[in-house]
Amino acid sequence: MDSDYGVPRELSNLQKKRTLYQPLLPPCLQGTTVRVEFGDATATVDPAGANTISRSFPHTYGQPLAHFLRATAQVPDAQIITEHPPFRVGVVFCGRQSPGGHNVIWGLHSALKTHNPKSTLLGFVGGYDLLGRTKDQIRTTEQVNAALTTCQTLKLDALVIIGGVTSNTDAAQLAETFAESKCQTKVVGVPVSLNGDLKNQFIETDVGFDTVCKVNSQLISNVCTDALSAEKYYYFIRLMGRKASHVALECALQSHPNMAILGEEVAASKLTLFDLTKQVCDAVQARAERDKYHGVILLPEGLIESIPEVYALLQEIHGLHGQGVSIDNISALLSPWASALFEFLPPFIKRQLLLHPESDDSAQLSQIETEKLLAHLVEMEMNKRMKEGTYKGKKFSAICHFFGYQARGSLPSKFDCDYAYVLGHICYHILAAGLNGYMATVTNLKNPVNKWRCGAAPITAMMTVWRHSRGLGASSIGKPAVHPATIDLKGKTYELLSQNAAKYLMDDTYRNPGPLQFEGPGSDAKSVTLCVEDQDYMGQIKKLQQYLDKVRKIVKPGCSQDVLKAALSSMASVTNVLSVMSAPSFNSQTPL
Amino acid sequence: MDSDYGVPRELSNLQKKRTLYQPLLPPCLQGTTVRVEFGDATATVDPAGANTISRSFPHTYGQPLAHFLRATAQVPDAQIITEHPPFRVGVVFCGRQSPGGHNVIWGLHSALKTHNPKSTLLGFVGGYDLLGRTKDQIRTTEQVNAALTTCQTLKLDALVIIGGVTSNTDAAQLAETFAESKCQTKVVGVPVSLNGDLKNQFIETDVGFDTVCKVNSQLISNVCTDALSAEKYYYFIRLMGRKASHVALECALQSHPNMAILGEEVAASKLTLFDLTKQVCDAVQARAERDKYHGVILLPEGLIESIPEVYALLQEIHGLHGQGVSIDNISALLSPWASALFEFLPPFIKRQLLLHPESDDSAQLSQIETEKLLAHLVEMEMNKRMKEGTYKGKKFSAICHFFGYQARGSLPSKFDCDYAYVLGHICYHILAAGLNGYMATVTNLKNPVNKWRCGAAPITAMMTVWRHSRGLGASSIGKPAVHPATIDLKGKTYELLSQNAAKYLMDDTYRNPGPLQFEGPGSDAKSVTLCVEDQDYMGQIKKLQQYLDKVRKIVKPGCSQDVLKAALSSMASVTNVLSVMSAPSFNSQTPL
Repeated sequence: MDSDYGVPRELSNLQKKRTLYQPLLPPCLQGTTVRVEFGDATATVDPAGANTISRSFPHTYGQPLAHFLRATAQVPDAQIITEHPPFRVGVVFCGRQSPGGHNVIWGLHSALKTHNPKSTLLGFVGGYDLLGRTKDQIRTTEQVNAALTTCQTLKLDALVIIGGVTSNTDAAQLAETFAESKCQTKVVGVPVSLNGDLKNQFIETDVGFDTVCKVNSQLISNVCTDALSAEKYYYFIRLMGRKASHVALECALQSHPNMAILGEEVAASKLTLFDLTKQVCDAVQARAERDKYHGVILLPEGLIESIPEVYALLQEIHGLHGQGVSIDNISALLSPWASALFEFLPPFIKRQLLLHPESDDSAQLSQIETEKLLAHLVEMEMNKRMKEGTYKGKKFSAICHFFGYQARGSLPSKFDCDYAYVLGHICYHILAAGLNGYMATVTNLKNPVNKWRCGAAPITAMMTVWRHSRGLGASSIGKPAVHPATIDLKGKTYELLSQNAAKYLMDDTYRNPGPLQFEGPGSDAKSVTLCVEDQDYMGQIKKLQQYLDKVRKIVKPGCSQDVLKAALSSMASVTNVLSVMSAPSFNSQTPL
Repeated sequence: MDSDYGVPRELSNLQKKRTLYQPLLPPCLQGTTVRVEFGDATATVDPAGANTISRSFPHTYGQPLAHFLRATAQVPDAQIITEHPPFRVGVVFCGRQSPGGHNVIWGLHSALKTHNPKSTLLGFVGGYDLLGRTKDQIRTTEQVNAALTTCQTLKLDALVIIGGVTSNTDAAQLAETFAESKCQTKVVGVPVSLNGDLKNQFIETDVGFDTVCKVNSQLISNVCTDALSAEKYYYFIRLMGRKASHVALECALQSHPNMAILGEEVAASKLTLFDLTKQVCDAVQARAERDKYHGVILLPEGLIESIPEVYALLQEIHGLHGQGVSIDNISALLSPWASALFEFLPPFIKRQLLLHPESDDSAQLSQIETEKLLAHLVEMEMNKRMKEGTYKGKKFSAICHFFGYQARGSLPSKFDCDYAYVLGHICYHILAAGLNGYMATVTNLKNPVNKWRCGAAPITAMMTVWRHSRGLGASSIGKPAVHPATIDLKGKTYELLSQNAAKYLMDDTYRNPGPLQFEGPGSDAKSVTLCVEDQDYMGQIKKLQQYLDKVRKIVKPGCSQDVLKAALSSMASVTNVLSVMSAPSFNSQTPL
């Protein structure tokens, strides 16, 4: 895609070649006759929150799923969009930059112009080197009203919001407000986030996650090779990715470092800082007994918030920030318990923990050097063990790294190029179908592009409501939001890591996926997470619909009594099982 | 190349493909009949040091250059090696790991086995993940004698030493000692060093430099994209590469960051820490005036030693280390002037400057966070300017990176794979020609492999002697050594950076070479340094020889009086000019 924004720059040969790359489109989006088929009205994964969500989003909750299909077979409930008036569409990058985001714009622009050359695409300058990055949110009444006025003034038919969980929650809120105000602008969300945490039944992965994990895995593998050569350092590598540990998990599966400490594991086991230190020290000691004095340990930037006592300390600090207490006075106002922990920590971490929280109320994770804290604590403990004579190996030596900025600015992988481009096209079809408050979706992503399924799901169907415990049984209910998905500790991806953890720890079975390739072997590699999880929710929903249609077709009035009886008894049993499984009490594991 | 060292590891698809990669050989090394042609006896680039060197290396100084050629044309002084007895060869990695080093072993092994399947290659376990990394040096009498005994016990025909300037200096010393002791083992050096500082008339570049610069440039470019997207940070990136700034210069030319501060520039201009800070601050201020609050600044790890007053401080600290003073007592014993500087510095840098020096007497450059020091000083100065009202822009914000370990463990680039493999083959031919104290050389490297010229040069011809000023006109003479080449501030590569410096600084003309590619565009890219310098010393030496031969052929006894007269007068003028240029006084710029 040509970009004429900014000064002319000299392109490398690879960049030139990449600008000529034409991403693929799945068959359903080729040509100008795309058929939209609506599924059933959507609910939400969390039945307990459904009421709250529907009350907050009266205009946009419960809308049906949409599938975009080739205009060939004739199916009930399907419509071919034949009207292609010129559209005016605005597009904005919200929140943090992520590789591949630009291709959403390209795909959208290409679809707009293919269907009607008179259509207009307006970019709001604000992330990314194409349009610049905007503020992190569109949330306050003031911000929402400003967006409403701008969209009305510019007579936009649609506003496309590209971003992660926060941005898409904001998109849903805008859609609802616009519908309420009878504003003609439809709001469409697109899942773009290197964190990989905008993930649910409809969204298999986010644009950028694939690239970032590949670049990080390349670097982690290089560090592993270095560790095995120098044989004298432990490398502590912190990875960008916000609260959830998806990036760390994926990178661990690509590069097989000795250890990967996941925030979700630490939170679930309620490990303290001291437990964690001890675990790492025990590993170092076990390796020393095999005469190994090197190793590579991954940790997610969100780890610091997953350690219960540190999280409590951070909550106190952020609370004091909220009360307007200045940084210099915070430490004196901490509770005795939090103060004890705070005073124990080394000065560099103290300074970082005191930073003002981010717009989503989390700590400034990219600025807190958790890897240095852990390396420091491990070194102290190893020295202590050495003094006491319980550790007899060589002196422990650590090197610390934070991999973040150097990955998220990468040229996007082929996967992310294609995925983003297809999502951009889908945005057009969402708009052409007149849908509001939807996110563009592509499923069956682990397969080649020609097998991808394109659709759209209401953002409200991805929302959950968090209950915050206030202690002693009291709790408050949060606002409905698209929350970041955490690692499923019962899921297949985590299981794969667990199964191999002992081998990775002791045997140095490092694997090197190499640098991101654009041609030849490796260029079509998909993330391990995507391949292992083997999701195809949208495909399965369609399959269910086909079963229901088939039953309806077979059991038409006039069919035999026996067939009807068999159908009734089978359906009674199915509905019974499903009613039990869907009852709120069954889903007792309420999201935190 | 198959390696069965260590536990079996799962290879990625790219790794599998790379293990199948067969590096190319230039025509002169194909087949088993390689012709060796000897040039004139070698001298050294530093005429003033020639005597010292020849006295230290009586057996190995002044040996001729060797060229390896196809066994076709008949030329005087050429011999075809027809004897291929089984050889016993030892190989060792000395000093720090560098991508591609393994291919030297592969090339050597392949050449040994092609010429005689009964030959044996022994690897000394000691850098790198194949053999492990050895100690940094083989230098003390004890170390040299141990090497001698081992080579004699193992009845080695040759010992191949793979490494940088230090290791090759050691190789020359071993060769001399072995010759003196009538030991049959020939010593061969191979230029492998990511620093790119083993560079002279015979050596155009080192194995590993290409890969490391490409990986670093990829990451720098990603950070540039991030800078341009976030528009709020200055990124200070320190690059590995020891005393010289070759890596930083090459990376700057590949990725076009806003600034690259080279140690050689700072040393030549005698810039103080405060000058340097001021320069960066002025740049930040100039950019702020164009409403730019982001930027990327490269600095080499050796920068800290290039700043005169910091170098003096380090010398004092290292002197005190040498006297056995413990770290806790050093600061109290500094001279008043050094102490004033030391006390001014932030605590983290104090701790790092106090570290024990490396085996080559330099500071522990990889451990000294010069980028953080500079960012800290710039931040202080910008805050001061803001307070004084001379700077009216936004608050200055920095993010610091050290790129080193994550680059030197990379899969080697195609260039480094080929270069190392060819060097390995040359080692065999050096041995077969019975040469001792030589380094394997390939020249004309900027061209495709089939144009590469293969040869060997005595390591002593690459040596220089440094004179250390002791103040007040007194000086001492150091030992002859292969010294690290610094950036030639009058050279073409530096000129290219200078010409573009203003544009890079202000216009954000970032260039992204992308990740290291193994197929398609970019996979055959050579380093900018190599292409710009356009060296072909060995080719030119051969050309000179051809001119001399031609003169001899034309001016044979029996030629006309006129021809003889013309020849005499022309040659008199040539020899006059060259005598003047080669006199020690002409080369008054003695290396530091």
